[in-house]
Amino acid sequence: MPQTRTSDRPPAGPVTDDESWRIRRTEADLHRLAETESIFALGNGWVGWRGNLDEGEPYGMPGSYLNGFYEERELSYPEDGYGFPQLSDTAVSAPNAALIRLWVGDEPLDLRTGTLRTHERVLDLRAGTVERYTEWISPAGHGVRVRSTRLVSLPRRPVAAVRWAVEPLDGPVEVRIVADLLANQRVPERSDDPRAAAVITDPLTAEYRRCTGHDGVLVHRTERSGQRVAVAVAHQVDAPDGFGSDVDRTPDRLRLTLAGTLRPGEPARLVKFAAYECARVDATPPEELADLAVREAEDARADGFDALLTGQRAVLDAAWRVADVQLDGDAELQQAIRFAIFHLIQAGRAEGDRTIPAKGLTGNGYDGHVLWDTEGYVLPVLTYLAPRVARSALRWRHAHLPEARERAAELRLPGATFPWRTIGGRECSGYWPAGTAGLHVNADIADAVLRYVAATGDQEFLAETGLDLLVETARLWHGFGHWSDTGAFHLHGVTGPDEYSAVVDDNVFTNLMARRNLRGAADAAERHPAAAARLGVDPAEVAGWRAAADAVFIPYDRKRGVHQQSAGFTEQPEWNFARTGEDDYPLLLHFPYLELYRKQVVKQADLVLAMQRCPGEFTADEKARNVAYYEARTVRDSSLSASPQAVLAAEVGHLDLAYDLFAESVLQDLADLGDKTGDGLHLASLAGAWLALVQGFGGLRDDRGVLSFDPRLPAAIDRLVFHLYWHGQRLRVTLTWNEARYELPDADPETSVDLWHHGEPLQVTGGTPVIRPMPPVPDPGPEPPSPPGRRPAHR
Amino acid sequence: MPQTRTSDRPPAGPVTDDESWRIRRTEADLHRLAETESIFALGNGWVGWRGNLDEGEPYGMPGSYLNGFYEERELSYPEDGYGFPQLSDTAVSAPNAALIRLWVGDEPLDLRTGTLRTHERVLDLRAGTVERYTEWISPAGHGVRVRSTRLVSLPRRPVAAVRWAVEPLDGPVEVRIVADLLANQRVPERSDDPRAAAVITDPLTAEYRRCTGHDGVLVHRTERSGQRVAVAVAHQVDAPDGFGSDVDRTPDRLRLTLAGTLRPGEPARLVKFAAYECARVDATPPEELADLAVREAEDARADGFDALLTGQRAVLDAAWRVADVQLDGDAELQQAIRFAIFHLIQAGRAEGDRTIPAKGLTGNGYDGHVLWDTEGYVLPVLTYLAPRVARSALRWRHAHLPEARERAAELRLPGATFPWRTIGGRECSGYWPAGTAGLHVNADIADAVLRYVAATGDQEFLAETGLDLLVETARLWHGFGHWSDTGAFHLHGVTGPDEYSAVVDDNVFTNLMARRNLRGAADAAERHPAAAARLGVDPAEVAGWRAAADAVFIPYDRKRGVHQQSAGFTEQPEWNFARTGEDDYPLLLHFPYLELYRKQVVKQADLVLAMQRCPGEFTADEKARNVAYYEARTVRDSSLSASPQAVLAAEVGHLDLAYDLFAESVLQDLADLGDKTGDGLHLASLAGAWLALVQGFGGLRDDRGVLSFDPRLPAAIDRLVFHLYWHGQRLRVTLTWNEARYELPDADPETSVDLWHHGEPLQVTGGTPVIRPMPPVPDPGPEPPSPPGRRPAHR
Repeated sequence: MPQTRTSDRPPAGPVTDDESWRIRRTEADLHRLAETESIFALGNGWVGWRGNLDEGEPYGMPGSYLNGFYEERELSYPEDGYGFPQLSDTAVSAPNAALIRLWVGDEPLDLRTGTLRTHERVLDLRAGTVERYTEWISPAGHGVRVRSTRLVSLPRRPVAAVRWAVEPLDGPVEVRIVADLLANQRVPERSDDPRAAAVITDPLTAEYRRCTGHDGVLVHRTERSGQRVAVAVAHQVDAPDGFGSDVDRTPDRLRLTLAGTLRPGEPARLVKFAAYECARVDATPPEELADLAVREAEDARADGFDALLTGQRAVLDAAWRVADVQLDGDAELQQAIRFAIFHLIQAGRAEGDRTIPAKGLTGNGYDGHVLWDTEGYVLPVLTYLAPRVARSALRWRHAHLPEARERAAELRLPGATFPWRTIGGRECSGYWPAGTAGLHVNADIADAVLRYVAATGDQEFLAETGLDLLVETARLWHGFGHWSDTGAFHLHGVTGPDEYSAVVDDNVFTNLMARRNLRGAADAAERHPAAAARLGVDPAEVAGWRAAADAVFIPYDRKRGVHQQSAGFTEQPEWNFARTGEDDYPLLLHFPYLELYRKQVVKQADLVLAMQRCPGEFTADEKARNVAYYEARTVRDSSLSASPQAVLAAEVGHLDLAYDLFAESVLQDLADLGDKTGDGLHLASLAGAWLALVQGFGGLRDDRGVLSFDPRLPAAIDRLVFHLYWHGQRLRVTLTWNEARYELPDADPETSVDLWHHGEPLQVTGGTPVIRPMPPVPDPGPEPPSPPGRRPAHR
Repeated sequence: MPQTRTSDRPPAGPVTDDESWRIRRTEADLHRLAETESIFALGNGWVGWRGNLDEGEPYGMPGSYLNGFYEERELSYPEDGYGFPQLSDTAVSAPNAALIRLWVGDEPLDLRTGTLRTHERVLDLRAGTVERYTEWISPAGHGVRVRSTRLVSLPRRPVAAVRWAVEPLDGPVEVRIVADLLANQRVPERSDDPRAAAVITDPLTAEYRRCTGHDGVLVHRTERSGQRVAVAVAHQVDAPDGFGSDVDRTPDRLRLTLAGTLRPGEPARLVKFAAYECARVDATPPEELADLAVREAEDARADGFDALLTGQRAVLDAAWRVADVQLDGDAELQQAIRFAIFHLIQAGRAEGDRTIPAKGLTGNGYDGHVLWDTEGYVLPVLTYLAPRVARSALRWRHAHLPEARERAAELRLPGATFPWRTIGGRECSGYWPAGTAGLHVNADIADAVLRYVAATGDQEFLAETGLDLLVETARLWHGFGHWSDTGAFHLHGVTGPDEYSAVVDDNVFTNLMARRNLRGAADAAERHPAAAARLGVDPAEVAGWRAAADAVFIPYDRKRGVHQQSAGFTEQPEWNFARTGEDDYPLLLHFPYLELYRKQVVKQADLVLAMQRCPGEFTADEKARNVAYYEARTVRDSSLSASPQAVLAAEVGHLDLAYDLFAESVLQDLADLGDKTGDGLHLASLAGAWLALVQGFGGLRDDRGVLSFDPRLPAAIDRLVFHLYWHGQRLRVTLTWNEARYELPDADPETSVDLWHHGEPLQVTGGTPVIRPMPPVPDPGPEPPSPPGRRPAHR
């Protein structure tokens, strides 16, 4: 997941406190349409609408996605190989129900023509809406004011809606309002970049359509993946007398046209209520699915748009109670972290055994695939903020255990190997050294299980679901690894998180995570013996896991006093930064793997990520030396990198560096640092920003099942407030330069949470905050140098 | 280049001495058509005709190839990467001029119908022809006898011809003889095997055609590669009175039809003289190219078919004088080695800065690409048997130095990187870990230069051509490698010959060959300072090469007392042979690279090949231990493996194993051991068979520029005679159990050659054979075990 840190984007203006709950864009930003479409994307984890303009065009990338809705396409290889996936899933747009086009006289409202007097869009992070205000003078000189408010309902998962109004600015105008429900909308080829999505032309086949009055429904299916989608629209029209209306339908389009003359002060109003239903073609017939969608759309209309607004607010109020972070001292980043959390809240509505793709439902980058980003970055946050969602996403993995077992058998390995990238559950990675070889995804899933159980105590989930995931992945590691003559357990030929090394031996991250996986499986099997017996686990197998875990080999360079990212890493040739130009980043677009793989250049935190995930495996001195060594070699061509680097930089005391890394992580999309925001938001980077704050400056650790904090604030933050759930209790942590305050705002005095503050055990009881002083941060010495030109921007 | 050693082919019958110069197939072999088409392929290095049946159908794979004639096709990758080739060359058939179809009554002669009374085909290794004799009874009961003789002219490179005749077996029959020149003949998809060729439908675009009487010419071009081909046919008809003829033409076909009634004893005869001309579209206009081809075809007809036969014989007589090997004691292998040498002679007619693709012109396997097989296996043989051909092939590399320099620049490396596979000179490998990373191809080219110069003393070639190749490849190694703290020079992240390991550090073969390359470049630059100055070589650069060569790191496992194929190899997990079934071979079709790459399983000789190419870098004890260690781990899924294994097994004294490995190498295609002969012959394996005999049992070594022999015969060989050119002199070596005889049959007494026999320096003078006793072979102990089921068949 590469990125460049630099962007030719003009710096955002200063953000006032007032704006910390809103993302506002007042420019039309025609050359940044794709980027703003991602930023203004709305979703509820099931339906996602990109922030395309109401009138549809121009667009960067039109998109209305349903979680898990995809088509398959064939992969072909110049030189095929055994086990190379032959099919890939690609997220395709459901029919677009957001379109409301306007003709003023004979001219379409189009920001590329006429005169744009005012254009403003606001994403309201508490209201869960995008509002738009436009004053536009047509080329013929007719002025109109258009307002719209759109939402994707947070409480009602099939529903999305747009409230839209137009009125003349000056004299009367003839208008035609065209509200489309449109399938198979043309999608542009985004780029040659290997990270962009594949384009399937006309992925949907029309099966059924129906109109009733102004309203209607379209049912389509995909040809290969066997999915069916019904989209219904119910309109609420409020137009002046004399307006005519017409409904027109084709297999791929339902069109409501309203036409008439508008006078100033007499707006025409239209509310579109859309509802999406999706099912496997063999599960629900077209008419039945259509009925479901129509009912949802009509119910929404019956309740009214204001009711939807109220519903948004209620869900968000509840979500923000735990999710909000207050960051005093930096208004821009205060806004940015709320933006980040808002999108996590949206994505985190994906309940019902669904998961969260790398881009959420904000774009089709990476083909809309689910990657390890989910378990590696997003679930560790949602485990604290919305544990039910973490559980749901893990259940989704569990539902695809059969495919993971099949894949392991295909690879001639025991247990299960989960896909590197997928929508439907099967491996879709077309480049095995950075896909199939990334076996750590299995340990990431196991780690997410262990974290979820540790933070919630949900033993029922562990026995019913988590154990299967732990056991099958433990079996993989046990069978994949081998013992050396000296009694060490090795994992050779795998790829760790850093994609600038591949197919290496004993990647420290992978090995430590495998150790955690093996031990977690052993513990869980012993705690739930009946469930373990169902899986055929016996004590000998458990003993084997423990023995392997204990013996896992961790390569360490004694001479340099640092861990090796993988065996031999520190003896590889150094990257020639002196001969690497600014334009050579991201390196993967300018150098062959032949160069990247064999050199000490790190795309993204790998050894550093190992220290974040498994902090107890390293001493404080090792961490400091490792941070310095790898900082100098990490180019952060991936948006996944800044956050773990921030956490470790904070831990070893380089708080300003940590803060700048946090800023890079949290601004990834708002500032489009990698020029890839147009493909969809980087949810892992946004989640990582929360981790950077809470693990970095809050010093939260829980890898050993106990909750501990070693808080330390950087100079830029005056006060940091965050919350998290721990065993069902909402814990509030308030950090200032002087003190740390721990409290359970919702709990009664009988309830308590045990935690550690800088090594001191505390018990926090309902109604009684515990306040402790912040110890001084020891001087860590000079900041370790980053590669030339690659330090995050100073704030 | 994988293979399986086993085949369900019935064992060939015993071969009589009489048959040692002929390959005869008396079955129709309809289920082995592709295989026999390769075996009966004729070619002159420029034009290649597969041994398709005269009547065209049925076929395994129709093919008439021109050296260097190809079309380009786009490569697409599921996940593209920097430097991945976007185009690949694919050999496509030139218009097929060999077709002569026959209708008997209303029924086409087709071996799948009617009754085949007799069918025989003979490849005559001294005549350079394929003769066919068929007696066939049509479904309606009409019997005919058809004879044909075909050849691809060895002295006249554009010319190929067929002499064909039909007569009734019993009563009179109505026949129609249809002689086609056919472009864009349909080509079947051969298989899903990644090693098969890509199929381009209708690769040729018709540009021009002309008929004159019975004769004509077609001119076509390729669309993307910009090549033009003209094929002319001139017919000689000798039919009974009353036969009618007709000529018909379409853009893709010229057809001569002869029809009439035949009576027993009154055959109809047809001789087709075909001529091929090829040029770049911007070099020669269509009509001009057509004229050239017509002239060649008409000249051939004017001289007559018998003259062509005489020309074949003359060329082959001269070639066999040096190339023939006499192997007394094993009639089957005597025949097989002559078959192998015959195909090398054919391929080795590729003069004029052309080279020899992996399959020669016998099939389109590997897309007709040139691989390292040429410099690694074929040229080391041709350097001794046809040094001008070796020089020509190296000139072809030199002609593509510009593309190799561009490719190095693209890879951001200095010097030149030659393509892993190509026809037109650019890299066409679609899987970089087994292509681009196989940098050793550059050292193989350098090695072929050094061997050629050592064997011929051709300093002019070295100064004009060879030096450029040596210098640019030395620059690559020098820039690619790096120095460790301990002063060793390393080459990391490359792939050696063994394709079951990839992107490894310090592959011994690569490192030793790079050392040889660096030293060879340094020596040559010092010997030809003016030429070196033209390339900008100064003494400092030469000193740098020598320093790197001296410091090249060679990984060695002290504990096990063996070299490591690459760093850490002997510490990788062992392959689980106990759980590998017979049907699991070749492993690459049944296991993912994820498994293969990280384990101690060897597809093809790699460390063993290093000992063959660089024998002076290893002690005798090391060789013996290495042979034993790697024999147990080498599965020979590549046809390139048996030959170097044979050479080293012989050197360390396991002569029976060596003989069985030689047999596997030489029978690769005649017995279709890898089931891939249908895609074309394995020229490297056939050349390797010669090396197995001459380096293995003859003990020839010349890596230090002096000629030495350590001969030792296996029990199965009573007498072995071979020849080779050394500095222009034809040396004959005759080995028996008792003695070795060295002589210069063509030289006068003033002429001598210095050589070593088992450590004793000898001077062989014209007219005076030198005879030395064969020392006893020391007992090497028990034969090292091969992987279960993978020992070559005992003879």
